[in-house]
Amino acid sequence: MHIRVGCEFSYEATWPTPTVLLVQPHPLGEHTIVREEWQLTSQIAMHAYHDIYGNLCQRLLLPQGDHMLRYDATIEVADTWDDVSPAAPQLPVEDLPDDVLLYTLPSRFCLSDVLSDTAWALFGTTEPGWARVQAICDWVHEHIRFQYGTSMSQTTAVDIYVQRVGVCRDLTHLAVTFCRALNIPTRYVFGYLPDIGVPISEAPMDFCAWMEVYLGDRWWTFDPRNNTPRVGRVLIGRGRDALDVAMVTSYGSPTLRQMIVWADEALAEQGKTITPMES
Amino acid sequence: MHIRVGCEFSYEATWPTPTVLLVQPHPLGEHTIVREEWQLTSQIAMHAYHDIYGNLCQRLLLPQGDHMLRYDATIEVADTWDDVSPAAPQLPVEDLPDDVLLYTLPSRFCLSDVLSDTAWALFGTTEPGWARVQAICDWVHEHIRFQYGTSMSQTTAVDIYVQRVGVCRDLTHLAVTFCRALNIPTRYVFGYLPDIGVPISEAPMDFCAWMEVYLGDRWWTFDPRNNTPRVGRVLIGRGRDALDVAMVTSYGSPTLRQMIVWADEALAEQGKTITPMES
Amino acid sequence: MHIRVGCEFSYEATWPTPTVLLVQPHPLGEHTIVREEWQLTSQIAMHAYHDIYGNLCQRLLLPQGDHMLRYDATIEVADTWDDVSPAAPQLPVEDLPDDVLLYTLPSRFCLSDVLSDTAWALFGTTEPGWARVQAICDWVHEHIRFQYGTSMSQTTAVDIYVQRVGVCRDLTHLAVTFCRALNIPTRYVFGYLPDIGVPISEAPMDFCAWMEVYLGDRWWTFDPRNNTPRVGRVLIGRGRDALDVAMVTSYGSPTLRQMIVWADEALAEQGKTITPMES
Amino acid sequence: MHIRVGCEFSYEATWPTPTVLLVQPHPLGEHTIVREEWQLTSQIAMHAYHDIYGNLCQRLLLPQGDHMLRYDATIEVADTWDDVSPAAPQLPVEDLPDDVLLYTLPSRFCLSDVLSDTAWALFGTTEPGWARVQAICDWVHEHIRFQYGTSMSQTTAVDIYVQRVGVCRDLTHLAVTFCRALNIPTRYVFGYLPDIGVPISEAPMDFCAWMEVYLGDRWWTFDPRNNTPRVGRVLIGRGRDALDVAMVTSYGSPTLRQMIVWADEALAEQGKTITPMES
Repeated sequence: MHIRVGCEFSYEATWPTPTVLLVQPHPLGEHTIVREEWQLTSQIAMHAYHDIYGNLCQRLLLPQGDHMLRYDATIEVADTWDDVSPAAPQLPVEDLPDDVLLYTLPSRFCLSDVLSDTAWALFGTTEPGWARVQAICDWVHEHIRFQYGTSMSQTTAVDIYVQRVGVCRDLTHLAVTFCRALNIPTRYVFGYLPDIGVPISEAPMDFCAWMEVYLGDRWWTFDPRNNTPRVGRVLIGRGRDALDVAMVTSYGSPTLRQMIVWADEALAEQGKTITPMES
Repeated sequence: MHIRVGCEFSYEATWPTPTVLLVQPHPLGEHTIVREEWQLTSQIAMHAYHDIYGNLCQRLLLPQGDHMLRYDATIEVADTWDDVSPAAPQLPVEDLPDDVLLYTLPSRFCLSDVLSDTAWALFGTTEPGWARVQAICDWVHEHIRFQYGTSMSQTTAVDIYVQRVGVCRDLTHLAVTFCRALNIPTRYVFGYLPDIGVPISEAPMDFCAWMEVYLGDRWWTFDPRNNTPRVGRVLIGRGRDALDVAMVTSYGSPTLRQMIVWADEALAEQGKTITPMES
Repeated sequence: MHIRVGCEFSYEATWPTPTVLLVQPHPLGEHTIVREEWQLTSQIAMHAYHDIYGNLCQRLLLPQGDHMLRYDATIEVADTWDDVSPAAPQLPVEDLPDDVLLYTLPSRFCLSDVLSDTAWALFGTTEPGWARVQAICDWVHEHIRFQYGTSMSQTTAVDIYVQRVGVCRDLTHLAVTFCRALNIPTRYVFGYLPDIGVPISEAPMDFCAWMEVYLGDRWWTFDPRNNTPRVGRVLIGRGRDALDVAMVTSYGSPTLRQMIVWADEALAEQGKTITPMES
Repeated sequence: MHIRVGCEFSYEATWPTPTVLLVQPHPLGEHTIVREEWQLTSQIAMHAYHDIYGNLCQRLLLPQGDHMLRYDATIEVADTWDDVSPAAPQLPVEDLPDDVLLYTLPSRFCLSDVLSDTAWALFGTTEPGWARVQAICDWVHEHIRFQYGTSMSQTTAVDIYVQRVGVCRDLTHLAVTFCRALNIPTRYVFGYLPDIGVPISEAPMDFCAWMEVYLGDRWWTFDPRNNTPRVGRVLIGRGRDALDVAMVTSYGSPTLRQMIVWADEALAEQGKTITPMES
C-alpha cells in the first residue's frame, strides 16, 4: 500500500534562523520509502542527524526573507490496521527492559508525578495491561473535547485534565501521563495519518499525535484522539512528549505564513491547508 | 444548648507584629453569646471592627517576645441539626438577590473559572438545586482524601482537584468552586464544631471549614468534609474563601508555638492541642 | 471640564443571558454626571444596584439574538492632573483604618502571597511611602512590555511577572500585587481615560485600568501603564482586582461582536473600535 | 588525589519495590575508580545498565521490610580546580554539534520556554559566551537564597524564580533554564563534592547539583550554588534536569529512614547524616 505524504511551510524570517525539521519517516518505522524529495525556494544547505531517540532530523539555517520548504514522499506501508492484542500483559516494573524505563518518568508536558493520585483513582481498579490502557484512551477520548485553538505551546497534561478540551497533541499528552503514572512505559509519537476508512466529515487532519505503549515484549499503538484502529500510519518521530518531536524547532521567531500537510492513499495528491496551531 | 468554645495561641514575635484575629462568633450568627472572655499574657490593646463581610475582627499589635492569647466563651445554640431541605430550588441567576451575586465569582483559592468545564462535566446532568449541591459534596467527600499536612497556605481548589487530597479548608474550597462554576452562590464559612453525636475516632477537630449555599430564599449549610448533618455549629466568619476568614492574619512572621481550639457541649472544658496547619 | 464617555456593545446570544454591566461613573467618584443615557436595541429591563465596593452595576437579562447596548454620558470633572504628593507617608499597618485592611490581602489575580519575597527583594530598600510606590510603578512600566493579545482572562500577576508582557489590566495587577506584598493597601480601579495631552500615537485606548494606593490619610491615583499624571479620568469601578470590576459579567457565553468605548474632551464624539481583549 | 565517596540509605518497604540507584561515578567522568564496594543488608540482586545519557544505573527489587544499601568507593581525580576560561566563545546555534542541541530545549523542571523573555531581559545585554553564563550564575547565587526545606519534588525553575529561595537542585535548575532560554546548551549534573578548601561553616553537603555548559568545543563546569571553583568533584550523573538523574527512583513509596552521603579527601571517612530533602 502506497501513501503519499509531505508538508510545505511558508516562512518569513527577519534574519537567518537556525531551524530543525522533523518531517521525514522514522528510519526504524515499519515502512519503506519509495521516493522522497525536498524542495526549497532558495539554495539552503541541509544537514541530517539522528537525535537521542533515533528520529531523523534536518538542520538548516533558514535564510532571511520569505521562504518555502517542501517535503514530498511516497511511502510503502503494510495494508493492515493497528494491531489489537487484548491479551498483551503489563509487565511488573522489575521485568521491563532497561531502555524502556525512561518512558515511565514525567516529562515537560506529561506531568505524571502531579497526576499520580488522579490516575490511580480513575484507573486503579481496571485490569492491568491492555484493558487498563484502553480504559485510559476511552476516558480521554470521551472526556476531553477536541477543539482547535484551545491550547497553547506551553499547555501541559494537567491543564488539559482541568480544562477538558484540547487538540490531538493534548489528548495524547494526557493519556501518556496517565499511563506513566501507572508505571506503564509510554512514548509520544507523531506521524502522517491518512483518512482511510474514515467518514470525510470526521477527518480534517493529515498528521496526528498518538502514543506507543509497552506491553508484553513490544510497543503497541494507541490513539486516544481517534480511539479506533487505523491503517496507513507513517511514523515520523518518537519521544517523551511533543517537545521532543516538534515538526519545526526554530531558534528565533520566523513568522509561519502557511503550513500544508498531506497524507493520502496511492498517488493522489490532495493538500490541505491548516493553521500552525492545528496539530 | 450551651457550647463552650475558644482558642489559645502561643506566639513568639521578634518584633511588634500587627495582627488580626477572627475567633469570636459572628454577630449575625444564629446563636447567643452567654459569656465571653479574652485573656492575654500582657496588656495588649485590642480594637474590634467588622470587615466587609460583617465578621467581627480584633486588631492588635502583638508585642515582641513570647505571648499567649486566649479567647473563651459559652454560646447558646439551638438544639437542632443542620437543616435539610431537598426541595429548596436553585434560582436562575436573574432571580438571585443583588448581594449574593458576589458569591458566584471566582476568588483567590476558588478558581471556578478554571474548573468551569470540569464542574459542568461532573455535575451538569444532576438535578439543579439541592440535589446538585449534595452531589458536589458527595463527590468531594468521596474523591478527596482527608489528610493533614498535604496542602499549604497557597494551595488552590485546582491543586486539590488534581492531587485528590487535602484538609477541611481544601475540601470546602473545591466544593465552593464547583458550586460557583455552576452559578450557585456559595460562601466559605468557618467556625467551631463540637463532636456531638460523632464517634470519637472520627472527631479530632473542634473547628472546621464548611460552606453556605444560596437556594430558594436563604443560605443553607453544607459540609463536604463531614458530609452529614451536625449539631452545635458556632459560626465565626464568612467570606469568599479561606483568605477572607483567616483565624489569624499576621503582618510579619511571628512563630506560632502552639494553637489549641475547643468546642464542647455544655460547660465541660476539654482542650485539644493541634498544630497550626491542621485546619 | 466636560468629558463625553460611553460604550457600545454588540452581542449575539443563543439564549437569554443574565448579565451585569459596570460602565457608569462611580457614585462616589470626583465627578458630576451632566447627562447620561442608555440605549438598547430592544426593550430590556435593567436593574441598578451597588456591589460590595459601592460600584454602580446594572443587571439585565440579555435577550436571545443580536443586540446592542449603548451607554453615553457627559461628565464634569475637575480640570486638574492626578495629584502628586511625594511627602505622603506610608502608615504602619497598625495605624491603617479598618476598612482599608482588605486591600492588603491577596486576591484572584493579585497573588501578593506568592510574590512576597520578590517584592521585598526588588523594592525592600526603597524609601517607604510615595517613593516606594513610584519605584514599583517605574519597574512595572519599564520591565513589562505592553502588547495586546498577550494575556488571557485567567492570567495572574505571577504570570505577568514571568512573561514580562501584558495589557493595562496586567500591568496594574502586578503593581497592585507588589504594593500589597509590601503591606501598602492598594485597590484596582477602572475607568474612562481621555487622551488629553497625550501624543496621538501613544493613545489608542479610551478606557484603562489603574490603581489607588492608601498613603497618609487618603487614596492616591497611580497608573503603572501610563506612569505619568493625566487629566480627565472618570472612575467607573473599584475592587480587589479585575474580577471585581469587569465591564461585563455574563452568566453564559454570548458572542461579543464589537465593543466601542469613548472618552473625549467636551462634546466631541469620537468612537474608537476595539476588540474585546484589548483592555 | 584520592577522594572517598559513598552513600548509605536505610529504607522500610511495605512490599517489594522496584528501584533504580544512580550513585556510582559516571563511566565517562574524568576520574578513575580505585576501589568500590556495595553492601546490602540482605541478598539483593542488582543489575547495571547505562541510561540514555550514559549514566551508570543499578536496578534492584528492594525487598519488603527494613533494609540498608551502602555504596563506598575510592576515586582518583586530578588535583586541579574547575577550569576557568573566560575566552571560551558561545557558538551560534547553527555551529553547535548535533548531539548538544537536546540541551537547548526545555525539560520537566527547566521551563526555558516560560522564562524566555525574563532571561533575555536579565542577561540579553551581557557579552555572549563565558561572561553571560557567569552573569547568570552570579544572579542566581545572589538572588536565590539557599535554604533547606523550601522546595518540593515538583518545584520548577519558574517557582524558584518567583519564590527566590531553594536548595542546590533548584538554583541549578534556574541557571540551566536561563542558559537554555539564551540558546546555550546546558546539562544538569550531579555528583559528590568534597569540602576541600571551603570553610567548615559553609560546607554542610557532600553531594551537590551543578551544571555543564557548552562553550567553544567542550563542556565546562559551572556551579551556581557555590559559584566558585572547586576541587575534587566526582561526577555521578548528567541529564536534562534532576528528574533524569535522581539518586533514587522508586516505583512505590518505601519510607526513607536515613540517608548518609560522604565525600572526603584521601581515606578519611567522615559520614554526614542528612535528611532526604536536603539535596
